[in-house]
Amino acid sequence: MDPKLGRMMLKEWVAIESDSVQPVPRFRQELFRMMAMAADTLQRLGARVASVDMGPQQLPNGQSLPIPPVILAELGSDPTKGTVCFYGHLDVQPADRGDGWLTDPYVLTEVEGKLYGRGATDNKGPVLAWINAVSAFRALEQDLPVNIKFIIEGMEEAGSVALEELVEKEKDRFFSGVDYIVISDNLWISQRKPAITYGTRGNSYFTVEVKCRDQDFHSGTFGGILHEPMADLVALLGSLVDSSGHILVPGIYDEVAPLTEEEINTYKAIHLDLEEYRNSSRVEKFLFDTKEEILMHLWRYPSLSIHGIEGAFDEPGAKTVIPGRVIGKFSIRLVPHMNVSVVEKQVTRHLEDVFSKRNSSNKMVVSMTLGLHPWIANINDTQYLAAKRAIRTVFGTEPDMIRDGSTIPIAEMFQEIVHKSVVLIPLGAVDDGEHSQNEKINRWNYIEGTKLFAAFFLEMAQLH
Amino acid sequence: MDPKLGRMMLKEWVAIESDSVQPVPRFRQELFRMMAMAADTLQRLGARVASVDMGPQQLPNGQSLPIPPVILAELGSDPTKGTVCFYGHLDVQPADRGDGWLTDPYVLTEVEGKLYGRGATDNKGPVLAWINAVSAFRALEQDLPVNIKFIIEGMEEAGSVALEELVEKEKDRFFSGVDYIVISDNLWISQRKPAITYGTRGNSYFTVEVKCRDQDFHSGTFGGILHEPMADLVALLGSLVDSSGHILVPGIYDEVAPLTEEEINTYKAIHLDLEEYRNSSRVEKFLFDTKEEILMHLWRYPSLSIHGIEGAFDEPGAKTVIPGRVIGKFSIRLVPHMNVSVVEKQVTRHLEDVFSKRNSSNKMVVSMTLGLHPWIANINDTQYLAAKRAIRTVFGTEPDMIRDGSTIPIAEMFQEIVHKSVVLIPLGAVDDGEHSQNEKINRWNYIEGTKLFAAFFLEMAQLH
Repeated sequence: MDPKLGRMMLKEWVAIESDSVQPVPRFRQELFRMMAMAADTLQRLGARVASVDMGPQQLPNGQSLPIPPVILAELGSDPTKGTVCFYGHLDVQPADRGDGWLTDPYVLTEVEGKLYGRGATDNKGPVLAWINAVSAFRALEQDLPVNIKFIIEGMEEAGSVALEELVEKEKDRFFSGVDYIVISDNLWISQRKPAITYGTRGNSYFTVEVKCRDQDFHSGTFGGILHEPMADLVALLGSLVDSSGHILVPGIYDEVAPLTEEEINTYKAIHLDLEEYRNSSRVEKFLFDTKEEILMHLWRYPSLSIHGIEGAFDEPGAKTVIPGRVIGKFSIRLVPHMNVSVVEKQVTRHLEDVFSKRNSSNKMVVSMTLGLHPWIANINDTQYLAAKRAIRTVFGTEPDMIRDGSTIPIAEMFQEIVHKSVVLIPLGAVDDGEHSQNEKINRWNYIEGTKLFAAFFLEMAQLH
Repeated sequence: MDPKLGRMMLKEWVAIESDSVQPVPRFRQELFRMMAMAADTLQRLGARVASVDMGPQQLPNGQSLPIPPVILAELGSDPTKGTVCFYGHLDVQPADRGDGWLTDPYVLTEVEGKLYGRGATDNKGPVLAWINAVSAFRALEQDLPVNIKFIIEGMEEAGSVALEELVEKEKDRFFSGVDYIVISDNLWISQRKPAITYGTRGNSYFTVEVKCRDQDFHSGTFGGILHEPMADLVALLGSLVDSSGHILVPGIYDEVAPLTEEEINTYKAIHLDLEEYRNSSRVEKFLFDTKEEILMHLWRYPSLSIHGIEGAFDEPGAKTVIPGRVIGKFSIRLVPHMNVSVVEKQVTRHLEDVFSKRNSSNKMVVSMTLGLHPWIANINDTQYLAAKRAIRTVFGTEPDMIRDGSTIPIAEMFQEIVHKSVVLIPLGAVDDGEHSQNEKINRWNYIEGTKLFAAFFLEMAQLH
């Protein structure tokens, strides 16, 4: 694989303004062009390619826009080989030169070994690295060591609209022969050391509404004689977590997986410069002082965050209002083996307890508006071992075995629906700035990532 | 005084769209026309009238509009008589037929004894009642029993722009001979029983900012390792008031005036239908069950209301943000003899105590952004006795001796700057709907109010 050719293709792909977030016809046309270009590339590699019509997207304003097709592609169907399916997306976050981009976001620009451009690392670069790896075998006229499938979408940044239905439908067709699923849509936690991601936290999002009446009151006219909804709500939200970050909902830690010796060792092995991490986060002091504690509390322990309040006075200035109806919002990041519906019951019961002790005449309603399971893989699965060996071969180091504190819904979705082993093999460095201005992928990461995927195919063939 | 003539004048005044809230040239012109018409009316009564140029009002958008003149008028300067100064305003709140008005807000319309129209009760009707009372003496060719002064403005609903500077300037000129100041710009607390208002609460408005950094965080990426500003803020706000409405700031009740037997009796004498009050407020249950407790907690005890939070997630939907910097807002309604700057110290010290116990690495800043003193008059002042007697004469009943839970800055301003006895003699009924759609004054209130002011002049002459 010629690195120049790889860079040219990335330049061509980045030039397409495939923004799925802003629902306007212009960007939607760009998305269709993007998907057609990718389908064409895969066809020229010899893949059987299906561009699946995804129907229309209904917008909140009543209008609709066509959803770009999802590409399902297959290369090889040798039953003696393992079959690896690669998931990627070619849509991007919005980017506007005026927002602080130093170069045109849609012109891939190399500065000191960094390739700047919207989508360079999220996710056009990694998708191309995988394609480059395949085309390297083609260029050398070698058989592919594994059967390869691609599922590539164009709506990830907009919430993977309609993808779940497609995966469900293709569960026993396209996915039936798939042994392993690889996603490369996150980042290392270091600038130089590769990583493999084997778990993400889930999330349960709660609203708690406290209502006296629908209208607000004037605090001069009613202050002093009301059970004020804000006083109730502040007490409810204040009962959730203590100042050390410990969640106060009874029973919430009961199902958290016990910490094993082996797991502690994986944390010890991870390189994390705490000083640099604190500086780049612009946080004076974290709740914990050691690398291990910090990583564990981001990845393997639940956390509770209070996001805000709807219905109260939220603007600058001084308004003497007693809000009549307020909605508090908070969420708990879930870890193995917490169960979404158990957490829902525990939180609801706890808030009901706290509220009943207040003897308030207001009405309280607790709702869980979102429940996403945590995801964790078995790091002794074949593809984890293959990925580790490939990293050793290409980078000469052991990977950081990491998790993600956020939810990556796509990983959880494949795990839940397709029931195949899922691995996340990120290619980008921690400072790539996905979703930010001046997104980039390092030329080194892009080239070594291509090599890594090629080595991964070979290791998979050996281990399968 | 011919009631038909009085109604005609009110109709003429209500027809002027003297909206001071919407800063547009059209309404400003109407305000100038309104003030000119009032000046003309007073001149025809024989008053010496000065229309004081108030200069321009600077708008937030950088433009400016002229402030309507303030009318200073004088009728009589007999040094053997007492001098009563009447304050009123002729500007109104915005009114739009489409907002739920059943009749044109600028066409005074009588329906079953109620005179509907914007400004009918707030404050054009009461200003005219005072003028009608004066003109009754003129019509009967009787000497006025007291010297009368008028200060009438056109910017009250916009915050009495520039008025304080004028009062300060006129302290030793226009106000030097004034013995008593009468304001008639609030309402009874009953539909049929007159009232005299002798006090208002003050207000101290606080912001408490908690900051980790200026940008927000993602709760997946940082949840679990931060001292989250919202957790700190919710704890701070939750430490202010308990579920029974009791303020938890140490020392806050120390200077609250002790409750006297005489005061208890004034509350007992007030007519308040609790059932009707609860229904019209659409509140299921108040903190207190008796009329006396409710009135005392609105008027003579402080209250604390939490208004909201700036900087957190306040919109519909589910956003997994950890706000980096949040500002909580609350205010304490102050009562005699609480002192604004003592309260500021107490609140600041309390919040600092609570915050320091959390060992948070965030920064907290407490600010008092507004401090308005409570106002209370001596109800044994001459003009209070005169007003009571006049009410007995005209209505055949004792008045409700009431206070206002809100601040009426104008009363406090006259008290502070001019140091003269201030009384609030409302004319309108509790259901007049000032600031609302379908504002009205009852024909009965308007006519009896005119009589009341005439009787008040006579009583003042006797008692002075």
